[in-house]
Amino acid sequence: MKGKFYGIGVGPGDPELITLKAIRILGTVDVVISPESAPSKKSSALEIAGRYVHGDAELISLSFPMTHDREGRERLCEAHASRIHGMLEKGKKVAFLTLGDPMLYSTYSYVLKYLLTMGDAVESVPGITSFCAIANKMNEPLAQAGETVGIIPMSENGTHLPHFMDEFDTLVVMKPSSNGPLLAQAIEDRGQQQNFFIVSQCGTGEEEVSRDLGTLREGKVHYLSTVIIKRRGFAHE
Amino acid sequence: MKGKFYGIGVGPGDPELITLKAIRILGTVDVVISPESAPSKKSSALEIAGRYVHGDAELISLSFPMTHDREGRERLCEAHASRIHGMLEKGKKVAFLTLGDPMLYSTYSYVLKYLLTMGDAVESVPGITSFCAIANKMNEPLAQAGETVGIIPMSENGTHLPHFMDEFDTLVVMKPSSNGPLLAQAIEDRGQQQNFFIVSQCGTGEEEVSRDLGTLREGKVHYLSTVIIKRRGFAHE
Repeated sequence: MKGKFYGIGVGPGDPELITLKAIRILGTVDVVISPESAPSKKSSALEIAGRYVHGDAELISLSFPMTHDREGRERLCEAHASRIHGMLEKGKKVAFLTLGDPMLYSTYSYVLKYLLTMGDAVESVPGITSFCAIANKMNEPLAQAGETVGIIPMSENGTHLPHFMDEFDTLVVMKPSSNGPLLAQAIEDRGQQQNFFIVSQCGTGEEEVSRDLGTLREGKVHYLSTVIIKRRGFAHE
Repeated sequence: MKGKFYGIGVGPGDPELITLKAIRILGTVDVVISPESAPSKKSSALEIAGRYVHGDAELISLSFPMTHDREGRERLCEAHASRIHGMLEKGKKVAFLTLGDPMLYSTYSYVLKYLLTMGDAVESVPGITSFCAIANKMNEPLAQAGETVGIIPMSENGTHLPHFMDEFDTLVVMKPSSNGPLLAQAIEDRGQQQNFFIVSQCGTGEEEVSRDLGTLREGKVHYLSTVIIKRRGFAHE
């Protein structure tokens, strides 16, 4: 019998924000893969998931260096996918961990493509996103009634940022660390200094909430951060 | 000692997509409130949460009829909030249930406002959103790399729909049942017939996935539905 590939969303960082489904599946898999962007960084996803994994399961760390070289990234993902495919051929159940949700800006989604193409059985398990965790933490609604929400990664949308800020009631900016100064400038230009917050390392012991443009302007924002801008101000102030 | 008010996201409908945090808190509360839009409709949120609630806890159903009368809704929410405030004054712990996430288009967010103003202790617990659940179910990424996501409720954004469809890589349309024909027309006009899907009653036994414009055009879409449009087509086809 062939194995199965699972994408497991472990949530935003707080170990309590994992779902029952993720826990159940983690207890049944033979292999757990955590993607690493740098060898020295410990995996937050594995820290959360590890306690539910069977003692005999194999833990594998796969390297996915951050890069702007799309072709290089594709080749690497394909190579990793081939290796996983080999495990599935041997009947193994393989979980691939994702902080947040597997369908939003995840490394998993790149590997998934190849395994679907090879006809492997795949199941993806959703996770709590960072922006939902942050909004709940702040008791600040992302949207009510007819309000709209835009989600954009800072990295490739800098030039469109002011436009998106004007257009959406709520704007979620992912990876603000990729261009903090530009984001700070856009917030200032639009007089939105009172209408945003930055949350870093959400749900972990090191979580920080800030409304200080300075950290953005000086490029000192942690890479695990999210910025939420509410154009018409906060609901509860 | 004063009580505490909890907003509990129970996830999109699949009972396994609830978090450990939601379960832990449900086991400690004295009162569980489920909002009802119509007296005859059974509460999916309570069906999911009920099994974790202490046997002595009081279950209360509060009526929030769907309405376009904003003032009327505000008065009703304020009245419900006053009642909840009274419970908190007596030291009770009160949970208010939400399908999906408490910060995205929830009834809870309207009541929350009044309780924060009255100085009550509040904790909101995030839940898996319908659109994340759907994307995972379909193994279809919502966004990768620099891609953008827009989330709009159909009800008040009909006229802006074509614009949003052009602008965002992925568009999540909430409550498509409020104007199915208009949405169908926009999808057709933009040649996006192959690039969308509708999921109804996500994660429940009655879940249905459809790519049929007819159900939209004829206004036959279930009210618990979400439409996802991927402007550049699906990743895995």
